[in-house]
Amino acid sequence: MVSEDKIVQIGHGGGGLLQAELIKFLTKDIPIKKILGGIGVDSYDDGATIPLENYGYEIVVTADGHTVEPIFFPGGNLGKLAAAGTINDLLMMGAKPLAITSVMLIEEGTPFKTLKKIITSFNKTTEQAGVAILGGDTKVMPHGSLKGVVMSTSGIGIKVKNRKIADSNCMVGAKIIMTGSIGDHGTALMAKRESINLETTLESDVAALTPLIKITEDNLGILAMKDPTRGGIASALNDWASKSNVGILIYEDKLVVKKEVRVIADILGLDPLEISNEGKAIICIKAENAEKCLADLKATTIGQDAAIIGEVTATNPKIVLLKTILGGSIILEMPLGEPIPRVC
Amino acid sequence: MVSEDKIVQIGHGGGGLLQAELIKFLTKDIPIKKILGGIGVDSYDDGATIPLENYGYEIVVTADGHTVEPIFFPGGNLGKLAAAGTINDLLMMGAKPLAITSVMLIEEGTPFKTLKKIITSFNKTTEQAGVAILGGDTKVMPHGSLKGVVMSTSGIGIKVKNRKIADSNCMVGAKIIMTGSIGDHGTALMAKRESINLETTLESDVAALTPLIKITEDNLGILAMKDPTRGGIASALNDWASKSNVGILIYEDKLVVKKEVRVIADILGLDPLEISNEGKAIICIKAENAEKCLADLKATTIGQDAAIIGEVTATNPKIVLLKTILGGSIILEMPLGEPIPRVC
Repeated sequence: MVSEDKIVQIGHGGGGLLQAELIKFLTKDIPIKKILGGIGVDSYDDGATIPLENYGYEIVVTADGHTVEPIFFPGGNLGKLAAAGTINDLLMMGAKPLAITSVMLIEEGTPFKTLKKIITSFNKTTEQAGVAILGGDTKVMPHGSLKGVVMSTSGIGIKVKNRKIADSNCMVGAKIIMTGSIGDHGTALMAKRESINLETTLESDVAALTPLIKITEDNLGILAMKDPTRGGIASALNDWASKSNVGILIYEDKLVVKKEVRVIADILGLDPLEISNEGKAIICIKAENAEKCLADLKATTIGQDAAIIGEVTATNPKIVLLKTILGGSIILEMPLGEPIPRVC
Repeated sequence: MVSEDKIVQIGHGGGGLLQAELIKFLTKDIPIKKILGGIGVDSYDDGATIPLENYGYEIVVTADGHTVEPIFFPGGNLGKLAAAGTINDLLMMGAKPLAITSVMLIEEGTPFKTLKKIITSFNKTTEQAGVAILGGDTKVMPHGSLKGVVMSTSGIGIKVKNRKIADSNCMVGAKIIMTGSIGDHGTALMAKRESINLETTLESDVAALTPLIKITEDNLGILAMKDPTRGGIASALNDWASKSNVGILIYEDKLVVKKEVRVIADILGLDPLEISNEGKAIICIKAENAEKCLADLKATTIGQDAAIIGEVTATNPKIVLLKTILGGSIILEMPLGEPIPRVC
């Protein structure tokens, strides 16, 4: 039990153990945690579901705060991040994204042209995904109360009932697919902030994973999906292992890490496995469906570097093991938190 | 057309003409503004609707940012305000509220016990309304980036199809009911901020208007509902007149204004009709159903001071006229914005 005498630290927002502590503190006394047989807040998944009576579908809802700093970064900006992040959370629940709502908190004095750039990216990303922007709110905050612009979004999607895709659904023997390279987003942001003077073209991978709609429909063996944002794949995989009460084995040689990511992470003393991604997914799929899913992914714009990176094991429940390139096995621990704040 | 060379002012968040300008700027280029025949973002209503195919219901969604300052105020706090505001927006669309999602942005260094107080109120308000909290997100921001705690919420409800309750639906001859006294919330907040040393017991009216679920089901003549928050009833009524292309006539002697609100507004040079409410609704209802609705309201905890305050007229379209106690008629203009920032 967390003492109420504690204070919130930066790490409490970092996607790791500290964040889990804060979220449990905030959610433990929620009176109504789920609706009918749906996925509730107590599942701590990417979203929740609301089964509809006498109807073959359930509503899927997600919520996200976007506080990225700087607002404009290599490969994207706050608006693209907010739209893609929301769409991706819906996709990770196996839903077809329908709509987004958006709350914008704006510091007094912000130029309209800054807002225009953010909104243009936000609009474009939703349009490409065929998602409506159905509403929102704006609040203006005085100097000293808020610096810059932040957004909060909610996603609304629809999903066929009785097809469980959830963090708690990883099954022994299933394969784990990663849709591409790891650590691009967090590393690009860090390089920008630290003003690392490399001749780097590294960009954030921020993107809506819209092709996953069809892949989810076609590949019936998908058990779980997750976009490994804060805390990277180390956090996401540990989440799965813990919630599904299974072991997970990852092959280091199957992970795709761009050279720039390797170099910058090395300079900063960081592990690419703990760094956030904003346009990638890990997919847990029954072994017999894995190759078909991989081929389907490779045929899309978002999955050209997809690979089967590991599998679910009966041994070592709740533990993620990394089989290293040199042949050893090390425990990939749940990170304490994303190494730096406000990557998303 | 708004020039992009402008900068955002505090008044752009105040619920009046300036806010309308900002919102139009942010929403005009949204690519997909509505779904099927639903109410879209271009209606600028309290929420939007997503009709479901081959089903008798539509999803209703709303979004709100809550940046109230101070976080704890007479009669409530950020948590109660966030829950009640979200539930009320759903009710104003004629929906049965089902679920809320919540994003919490927290300044580094905030005590856990402050969060606990906010969340306890948030939880209690949702529980009383029978609404689930299905998800959310937390972000921690460093000192200097955010002061205090803000919340953004989204509401998800369900509504029978083909029963239009919308700002644009006010019809000539219909009556307008106000569920209680005006200006309590904004005035209580201002008194607290300005440290007005009156022996006042004035509290915010913040409350979820949950009894409106049954009243909406029972009173088939309801055409529009609105919770007059930022900009007060002056803003809400002008919104109706404009969107429905009708005139609205309000009788000043029917308005309930508490003595404390009168006195404090007078000291501060403000008009109670332009001050925000957080536990009230205006209802536009067919004349033949008005008395029944009024009686039903008076039998609830939230409508004991309800009154028929006016009617919809064919004359003076897009204009709100106030028939004063002394017998004159003055135009009740759309306010430029809530007199002070961050009341909600």
